[in-house]
Amino acid sequence: MAETLIKVDLNQPAPSNPLVHNRWHPDIPIAVWVKPGDDFILETYDWTGGYIKNNDSADDVRDIDLTTVHYLSGPVGVQGAEPGDLLVVDLLDIGAKQDSQWGFNGFFSKQNGGGFLTDHFPLAQKSIWDFNGMFTKSRHVPGVEYAGLIHPGLIGCLPDKKMLEEWNKREQALIDTDPTRVPGLANPPFAATAHCGKAQGDVRTKIATEGARTVPPREHGGNCDIKDLSRGSRVFFPVYVDGGGLSVGDLHFSQGDGEITFCGAIEMAGWVHMRVNLIKGGVAKYGIKNPIFKPSPITPNYKDYLIFEGISVDEQGKQHYLDVTVAYRQACLNAIEYLKKFGYSGAQAYSILGTAPVQGHISGVVDVPNACATLWLPTEIFDFDINPTAAGPVKFIDGSIQMPISPDVKK
Amino acid sequence: MAETLIKVDLNQPAPSNPLVHNRWHPDIPIAVWVKPGDDFILETYDWTGGYIKNNDSADDVRDIDLTTVHYLSGPVGVQGAEPGDLLVVDLLDIGAKQDSQWGFNGFFSKQNGGGFLTDHFPLAQKSIWDFNGMFTKSRHVPGVEYAGLIHPGLIGCLPDKKMLEEWNKREQALIDTDPTRVPGLANPPFAATAHCGKAQGDVRTKIATEGARTVPPREHGGNCDIKDLSRGSRVFFPVYVDGGGLSVGDLHFSQGDGEITFCGAIEMAGWVHMRVNLIKGGVAKYGIKNPIFKPSPITPNYKDYLIFEGISVDEQGKQHYLDVTVAYRQACLNAIEYLKKFGYSGAQAYSILGTAPVQGHISGVVDVPNACATLWLPTEIFDFDINPTAAGPVKFIDGSIQMPISPDVKK
Amino acid sequence: MAETLIKVDLNQPAPSNPLVHNRWHPDIPIAVWVKPGDDFILETYDWTGGYIKNNDSADDVRDIDLTTVHYLSGPVGVQGAEPGDLLVVDLLDIGAKQDSQWGFNGFFSKQNGGGFLTDHFPLAQKSIWDFNGMFTKSRHVPGVEYAGLIHPGLIGCLPDKKMLEEWNKREQALIDTDPTRVPGLANPPFAATAHCGKAQGDVRTKIATEGARTVPPREHGGNCDIKDLSRGSRVFFPVYVDGGGLSVGDLHFSQGDGEITFCGAIEMAGWVHMRVNLIKGGVAKYGIKNPIFKPSPITPNYKDYLIFEGISVDEQGKQHYLDVTVAYRQACLNAIEYLKKFGYSGAQAYSILGTAPVQGHISGVVDVPNACATLWLPTEIFDFDINPTAAGPVKFIDGSIQMPISPDVKK
Amino acid sequence: MAETLIKVDLNQPAPSNPLVHNRWHPDIPIAVWVKPGDDFILETYDWTGGYIKNNDSADDVRDIDLTTVHYLSGPVGVQGAEPGDLLVVDLLDIGAKQDSQWGFNGFFSKQNGGGFLTDHFPLAQKSIWDFNGMFTKSRHVPGVEYAGLIHPGLIGCLPDKKMLEEWNKREQALIDTDPTRVPGLANPPFAATAHCGKAQGDVRTKIATEGARTVPPREHGGNCDIKDLSRGSRVFFPVYVDGGGLSVGDLHFSQGDGEITFCGAIEMAGWVHMRVNLIKGGVAKYGIKNPIFKPSPITPNYKDYLIFEGISVDEQGKQHYLDVTVAYRQACLNAIEYLKKFGYSGAQAYSILGTAPVQGHISGVVDVPNACATLWLPTEIFDFDINPTAAGPVKFIDGSIQMPISPDVKK
Repeated sequence: MAETLIKVDLNQPAPSNPLVHNRWHPDIPIAVWVKPGDDFILETYDWTGGYIKNNDSADDVRDIDLTTVHYLSGPVGVQGAEPGDLLVVDLLDIGAKQDSQWGFNGFFSKQNGGGFLTDHFPLAQKSIWDFNGMFTKSRHVPGVEYAGLIHPGLIGCLPDKKMLEEWNKREQALIDTDPTRVPGLANPPFAATAHCGKAQGDVRTKIATEGARTVPPREHGGNCDIKDLSRGSRVFFPVYVDGGGLSVGDLHFSQGDGEITFCGAIEMAGWVHMRVNLIKGGVAKYGIKNPIFKPSPITPNYKDYLIFEGISVDEQGKQHYLDVTVAYRQACLNAIEYLKKFGYSGAQAYSILGTAPVQGHISGVVDVPNACATLWLPTEIFDFDINPTAAGPVKFIDGSIQMPISPDVKK
Repeated sequence: MAETLIKVDLNQPAPSNPLVHNRWHPDIPIAVWVKPGDDFILETYDWTGGYIKNNDSADDVRDIDLTTVHYLSGPVGVQGAEPGDLLVVDLLDIGAKQDSQWGFNGFFSKQNGGGFLTDHFPLAQKSIWDFNGMFTKSRHVPGVEYAGLIHPGLIGCLPDKKMLEEWNKREQALIDTDPTRVPGLANPPFAATAHCGKAQGDVRTKIATEGARTVPPREHGGNCDIKDLSRGSRVFFPVYVDGGGLSVGDLHFSQGDGEITFCGAIEMAGWVHMRVNLIKGGVAKYGIKNPIFKPSPITPNYKDYLIFEGISVDEQGKQHYLDVTVAYRQACLNAIEYLKKFGYSGAQAYSILGTAPVQGHISGVVDVPNACATLWLPTEIFDFDINPTAAGPVKFIDGSIQMPISPDVKK
Repeated sequence: MAETLIKVDLNQPAPSNPLVHNRWHPDIPIAVWVKPGDDFILETYDWTGGYIKNNDSADDVRDIDLTTVHYLSGPVGVQGAEPGDLLVVDLLDIGAKQDSQWGFNGFFSKQNGGGFLTDHFPLAQKSIWDFNGMFTKSRHVPGVEYAGLIHPGLIGCLPDKKMLEEWNKREQALIDTDPTRVPGLANPPFAATAHCGKAQGDVRTKIATEGARTVPPREHGGNCDIKDLSRGSRVFFPVYVDGGGLSVGDLHFSQGDGEITFCGAIEMAGWVHMRVNLIKGGVAKYGIKNPIFKPSPITPNYKDYLIFEGISVDEQGKQHYLDVTVAYRQACLNAIEYLKKFGYSGAQAYSILGTAPVQGHISGVVDVPNACATLWLPTEIFDFDINPTAAGPVKFIDGSIQMPISPDVKK
Repeated sequence: MAETLIKVDLNQPAPSNPLVHNRWHPDIPIAVWVKPGDDFILETYDWTGGYIKNNDSADDVRDIDLTTVHYLSGPVGVQGAEPGDLLVVDLLDIGAKQDSQWGFNGFFSKQNGGGFLTDHFPLAQKSIWDFNGMFTKSRHVPGVEYAGLIHPGLIGCLPDKKMLEEWNKREQALIDTDPTRVPGLANPPFAATAHCGKAQGDVRTKIATEGARTVPPREHGGNCDIKDLSRGSRVFFPVYVDGGGLSVGDLHFSQGDGEITFCGAIEMAGWVHMRVNLIKGGVAKYGIKNPIFKPSPITPNYKDYLIFEGISVDEQGKQHYLDVTVAYRQACLNAIEYLKKFGYSGAQAYSILGTAPVQGHISGVVDVPNACATLWLPTEIFDFDINPTAAGPVKFIDGSIQMPISPDVKK
C-alpha cells in the first residue's frame, strides 16, 4: 500500500498544518521529498479549509473570507527535478476522506467574488451533495444523480522568482484598470491570511508579502479547474525550481466545464494517490509552456447529450466580437431556461450545470462577429426524460425542494 | 430512395441556380416545399460556389471576394410550419458529390478576412484534402489521415423581419466602433453580390439591400460551424416565418472546434439527406432561443488525446479578464509549437488543428483573472506516436512537403 | 475518385457475371489485378444474387436454393502477393447501391437451413428494412430505428490446394456422422449450381466439382459474419496463392453478434471501397492462423444496454458442459421473452436480435458445468423506454403489424 | 457514510465467520437485514478464503482444496422481498481492502480443476498483481498495466427448494455420464467442507448435505464471472425466498471475457457498497428467468483493439458443429501465439487474456458447420506497440521474468 506522505485532520484548522500552504512562491519549503518512480498519497483539505459546512444554510458561502484560499498539500520535492524538466504525474486514484463523504457547491454573493452568472444569481446559495460510492446526489437539487468525475481543481509546481514577478505585475496592471470593481478583476498578494507551510521568520514574511494568490490558473497549471484532468490521467508539468515543488488541492467530486458556479464544483476534502517521473529537459524538447495531459481511461462515459448553442450577443442584445466567454454564458442561460420548464428553479439548474459532467465546447471563433459556444448536457443524469418531444415538457420537479439562499448583510 | 429536391451543377456558376441563395431575408422565396415526415436530399455547392480549386496554389484563397459567400441550398418550406414552432431536422446522411471527392482548407490573408491566428499566419495558404471513403488525407500535410466528421457548417431557418433588423442594427453598431479595421469587425449587407434565389424585381432588390450576410452564427443557427452537428444528429430549429424556410450549405468533411483556420474546415460540395418534423409551439414550450441538438450515434470515436492548456494571457504577456477566446488561442499556439517538434511547419500544424476532429473545451471561466481553455488533439490520427517520452520527439516529418502560400499583392 | 473495378447489374442474373463466383477454389481465375497501395471499389450482389425481393411475402425465403450462395465479387489479385504474406485491407467505406436502398432479414424454414432458434421459429419469415441515409427501419418490425454497422459478411483470400482438401475432408467427416440430418450438419461441394467466375472448360469443371461451399467461416476468414469487421476497419488476411485472390460479398447493413437469424443480417447489394497493402512474410512473423483485424473508428456508439444472461442448461432443462452455444441461445430466448412484454411478437423480437448491433459476449467458460453468455441489447434503438421499472412494462407495440410468414409446402 | 454490515478479518479463517457461507441452500440463515432503499457495505474474503498468498510460488494454486470455495458474504435479507420479485441492486462501488492491495491469477493443475486451456497449460502457475490506485500490474507479467474493471465474480439470491433440487439433479446426471473424468464434469454437494453461515445443528447438517456448490452460474446468477457486471452497474435479480437472501463474493479487480484462466481473474479480498430496491412481481411482469443488468457508466474505455478470430475446428483439425466454446478456444490460442512473438511466454500471454479487459464475442453461430468467435485484445494496456507492421514484431519482453510454476506431486 502506498504511503500517505501528507495527512490532514479535518478537525484541525488548515493553517495549523505545516505541510499545507495557500500561496505560490519559490521559497515555500518543500514539505516532503520523493524519488522518480515513487507512488504515494497526499491528503487534502477542501479548498476553503473546512469553512463550508454540511448544513442547510448558505451563510458560510456568503461570509467566507476568500483571501484564505486555497489550502494546498505540498510542496512535494522530487529528487533530481531541475528547471526545464517535465514532471510526469500519474493520478492513480482520488477520493473523498472516509469520514467526509460529501461535498458542497454554491454561488458567491456578487459582493464576495460572484460567479459566471452573478448578474442573474447575485446572492449566496448552496447545495450539499452526498457521495454514495462512485455516485453523488443532493438533498437540495432533486432528480439528478451522477457518477463522479473526480479531479483536483488545483495542481502545479512552484514558480521561480521571475515567473512570480511577472504574474504579480500583469495582474496588478489589470486591477489598476478598475481598482474598485466589485467583484475585483484580480486578487493581489495579501499577507494577513497567507499560510506559508513550514516557512518561518523572514522567509515566511517574504512569502506572505509576495506570494501569488492561488485563484487563477497560470503557466504552471495551478487552479485550472479542468474536469478532465481526472483520476487516471497523466499530466506533464513544467519544473521551475529544484525539486519541482508539486502541490495539490481543491479536489472536486464532479464539475461541469467552466466551473461556472465558482463556489465551485462539488468541493471536497480527500486524498490523491499519485506516481511521479521526470522527462529531463522536457520543456525545451517539446516546446512546452503550459502543462499538457492525457485523459483518463476511466471516466463517466455518458454519451447522450442535449446540446445548447450560444453566440456572442449578450443578454442586453449587444454585439461582442468573437467573444467565447459571452457565447458560453448565453449557452448556459439557454440551458437554464430549458431546465426550468421541467420544474427546476433557476438556481438548481445553474447548480446542475456547475456540477454535472457538462461539456463546454468552443464551436466557432472565426465567423465575425459572433463566436459560437456549445454546452453539452448529459441526459442520462436525470431521473426522467429531458429530451424535447411533440407533447412538450412534463414538470417532474414540483418545486417543493429549494436551495438555501442567504441575502447579503448590510455592513 | 429519397428524392433529390435541389440539384447543383458544379460546372455552372452558383448564382445561376435559383434554388440557391447567399443572404438571409424573410422574403427569399421558398425553393421547394415538403411535408412533415418527409425525407429528401439537397445538393449544395461548397461555400464559395466553386471558387477554390483543387490545385497547388493559394492564389484563389488570397483573391476570393468574400461578399459572395455562402451559397446555400433552399429555403425549404415545410407545410404547416409556423412561427414559434420547432423544426426537427434529422441529418440522415451527408456526403461529398461523387465527382468531387476532395475538399480544401486554407488561411485567408489578413488583408482579406484573416483567421484566428492571423497575426501569426498573415498570408494566404491552402491545403487540398482527398477523400478515400470515410477517410481523408492531404498531399500538403503529411503524416495524418482521419475519419470524416461530416457536417453542415451552416444551416438554419429564415429570420423574420424584426429579427433581421435587430441583426443588422447590432452588427452595424459594432462596425461603427472601428469602421476601418482590417479585417473588419463584421460584414454589413452588400447588394452587389447578393444572390436572392428565385426572387425577382423589387423583392430581389429589397433582399439584396437588406439581407443579412451569412458569415456569423445567429439566433436561428446559421453559420455555427459546430463540428458535432454532424450527419446522424437531430437538430431543433426555431421557426420565424411560415414554412420555416430551412437552408443549408457550407458542408465540411471534417473540422476542429473553433474552425480556427476560417477558410475553413475541409470544405466541400456535396449533399445532405434529411428528414423534417415539427414540434408545434415548441419555442415557448421549451424556452428555446438558439437551436438545440442531439449528437450523432455515428462519429469518429477517437479516444486517446493529448490535451493542451491555454490561459487568458496573450502572446505579449498582457493579462485579459476571463477571456476564453484569448485562452483558446494560447492553447492552439501551444499545440502548434509542440507539433513543430515533430517536423511540421507552423502552417501545417495550424491546418491540422483546423481540420482534424480536435476538441476545444471551455475549462475554467471563473478563476479571476484567467480563463482556461483546453485543446484536445486526437493522437490516433497521426501515422506516428506524438506522445511525450523521456527520449524526446522524433522528427518524422522531414519538411520536404510544404503548403502552398501566396503573398499579398500590392493593390 | 476511386475506380470501380467490378460492377454488378442487379437486373442481370449473378451467374452471368464473370467477375463473380460462389465457390472457394485455388483455380478460380483472378478477376482483376491491383497493386499494393491501390484503392478501388467492388460492387456486389446481395448474397442470394437477388433472389429475395422487396415485398411482403416470405415465399422466397422459404423456396430459395441455398446451393447457389454466396455470390462474391472477385477474386482480386494483388501484384507481388505470395503465400505467407499478410494482405492488409482497409475497408474505406461500404454502402448500398444507389438504386437499392433496402435490405432483408429472415428465418429459413427448418426444412431449408433453419437458424439459431429454428426449433422455436421453424417456418420461413421475412422482414424488409429500408435505408434512410445511415439509418434503417422496417415496415414489418415497428418501434425501432438504428444506425447501420455496415460490413461484409464474407471476405477472404483463395485457399491453396492443401487447405481446400482439408476443408472438404473434415466437413465431410462431420456430415458422415449424421448424413440425413435436417438441416444438414455441413454442405459438401455441389457442382450443379457452382459459378466459377471466368473459368471455362476443364478448369471450370474441376472448380465446380471440388470447390468448397462458401457457407462457413474458415482459416482464411470467409463467411465470418463478424459485425465489427465494419467499414473503417483494417483486416490482415493470410495469403495462400500468388496474388492473394481476395473476394468479398454478403454485405450487411447491420447485424447482431451471432447473426442468429441466419437469413441473415440486413442483407443488401452494394459496394465496397477498399485499399490493399502487403506485409511480406507476415504469417510467420506474427504467427497468424486466422485473419486478425482492428475495429473501425466510426461505428454506431450506442452505450446504454440491457444485458441478458444465459447459461448452458437447455430449454428442456438438460445440463450441457461449458457449452457457450447453448448459453447464448438461452440469453437470446430470455431477451425475446422480455421484448414480448412490450407487445412484440416472438418473430419480431428475434428479428431485432438478428439485425440490431447487439453484442454477444462469452462471459464465463470455466465454471463447470455451466458456460455463461450475455446478450447486450442497445436500448437507444427503441422509440420507447424498455428499461425495467417498478410500474412494469407498457405495451407500446399493439400487434397490428406482423412479419410475413410462409408455411412449408408439402413436397 | 454507509454502514459496513458484514466485516471480514483477513487474519481469521473464513469458516469462522458466521456471516459468510460457501454453499447455496434456502435454509441458510439471513446474516443481516436491510430495507429497500438502503445502501450499505459488505466486506468479503477472496474466493479461496485467503488460501492463495502473495508470494512467488504456485504451490498453493496446485494444492488448494476446491471443495472449500467460494466464501460469500451474506445472505442479506431485504424486508418485503418475496418470491417473484426482482431485487434491484446498484453496485455503487467496489474496492480492495485497504490492507490488501493485491490480487492473484493462476491456472489450476489439470489434476485439480484445470482451466480453459488446460491441455496446453496443464500445471499450476501463478501471477501476483499489485494495485496502484485504479491500476494494476504484475511482477510476473511484464509490459502491461491496466485500469481495473472491478466486479463481483459471484452474486445472487438464495434458491428455493425446488430450484435447488433441479440443480443437483441435472448436474448429477451430467456427472454420471463420465464420473471419473479429470477434471470432473461438475461438482456435487460435499458436506465435509461446507460452511453454512449461522446455521447450527440439524439445519446445518441439511445445508451441508444438500447445498449446491457455488462453482457454476445458474438461473439465480451466482458465479457468472461477467466482467461487465462491474461497479456502477445495476442488476435485477429474481427472488425465490422471503427476504431474497443476497450473497456476494469472489471479487475481481479485472478479468477478460470467459475468465479463461479459471484461477481466476485478478482475485482479491475487498468490499462492495450497494443499494437495494424491489420491483414487486417483477419476474412475471418482465418474463425474467436469469438476472438482467445495465452496464456501469464508469468502466475502462479502451477503444483500440487487436481482434483475433477463431472457428470451431479444434487443435487436432477436427470439425465441430457450431461450437462457440471451441471457436473461442482457437481465438485464445491465436492471440497467445501472436503475443509470444513479442517475447511473452505462453503462460504470460494466457494470464493477460485471463486478466485484462479482453472482450470475447460470439460473432457467428449459424454458418454451418463453423461457429466464429472473436477475442478483442486492448492494445493500450501494453507499454509498447503490438500492432502488426511491415517491419515485423519487436521482442520487447526479454524472457528474464517468468511466472512461478509448480509441477504436480505424485500422490
